[in-house]
Amino acid sequence: MIIDDNCVLVPPSNIGTHLGRLLDHADGTDVSFIVDNETFQAHRAVLAARSPVFRAELFGPMSEATMPSITLHDITPATFKVMLRFIYTDELPLEDELEDSSTEMFQNLLAAADRYALDRLKIVCAQKLWDKVSVDTVATILAWAETYNCQELKNRCIDFFVVEENFKKAIFTDGYALLVLKFPEIIAEMKKRV
Amino acid sequence: MIIDDNCVLVPPSNIGTHLGRLLDHADGTDVSFIVDNETFQAHRAVLAARSPVFRAELFGPMSEATMPSITLHDITPATFKVMLRFIYTDELPLEDELEDSSTEMFQNLLAAADRYALDRLKIVCAQKLWDKVSVDTVATILAWAETYNCQELKNRCIDFFVVEENFKKAIFTDGYALLVLKFPEIIAEMKKRV
Repeated sequence: MIIDDNCVLVPPSNIGTHLGRLLDHADGTDVSFIVDNETFQAHRAVLAARSPVFRAELFGPMSEATMPSITLHDITPATFKVMLRFIYTDELPLEDELEDSSTEMFQNLLAAADRYALDRLKIVCAQKLWDKVSVDTVATILAWAETYNCQELKNRCIDFFVVEENFKKAIFTDGYALLVLKFPEIIAEMKKRV
Repeated sequence: MIIDDNCVLVPPSNIGTHLGRLLDHADGTDVSFIVDNETFQAHRAVLAARSPVFRAELFGPMSEATMPSITLHDITPATFKVMLRFIYTDELPLEDELEDSSTEMFQNLLAAADRYALDRLKIVCAQKLWDKVSVDTVATILAWAETYNCQELKNRCIDFFVVEENFKKAIFTDGYALLVLKFPEIIAEMKKRV
């Protein structure tokens, strides 16, 4: 007997693509978020599956289960839009499709990822912000990493900062001054390593 | 300036894991399926995202949108359970966690995947069935591939069948006799190639 061992190849998982289309079509949405003057339709089940914070807010004992719309004050519409897409697809829009790909955009996204406990989005933001680290930005980005509990980014920023060629320049930035004032424990840690 | 180029590594997408937990916790389920005497809770949005057939049935103009429970007659509970898990996770249970990993189980799953237009599940079933192809089973599996519109599996079964060492044995099986009776076009196609 001759077995042809040319095996059947299974394509990669396409759940993200499918949920992205669900978000586009808005079939069966059961919650809406009002952010400034914009409204975003979504599915409670998807949000709860992806974020333990949404799960508690939407299905926990103190849940807003009966509220058809929820108003958010701690996020911008542009950030919420990107976060919502990430929740459904596990991807960010391509850089040239992002309305804003500034360092501040990724700061806002990191803040939102921390607020809603979206761990993978935090790492994606850490990666984007790490790409933007230079002697001019390292102190500011380090402060964000500390504020939003992003250990991956914090460790890398400290490693970068303590290199002599780097800290000799970074210490003259406003970001560094704010770091000294707001995060003395980080300064103590770096002092040991310099 | 020295840039440490040790980049931040982003782990693979975990949507399937998250939706798998959603299925386990059954937070916010909004539809149930009755299959024989078993009841399965699910989320309309997830089903619609993954299957165009569920989308039409649950959200289309003729939809069963207001029905809290739907009774299915064309599937077994064991098959529905595995299909539902696949819809949420894009994975089959491990072989030793499957209650039944027989050829018939994958036939039933292929039938269900065809019924609900779950294209990736069809390919996964094709892969499993292809592993079970031998001179004893090729004719039966070829008939299933034709019945459930699985071109990948059909082509491979035909390629396997037309090898002289194989068809000299396969033609003596009941599966082959049924193939001759039910699918004359396949027989005509093979006749040309033998």
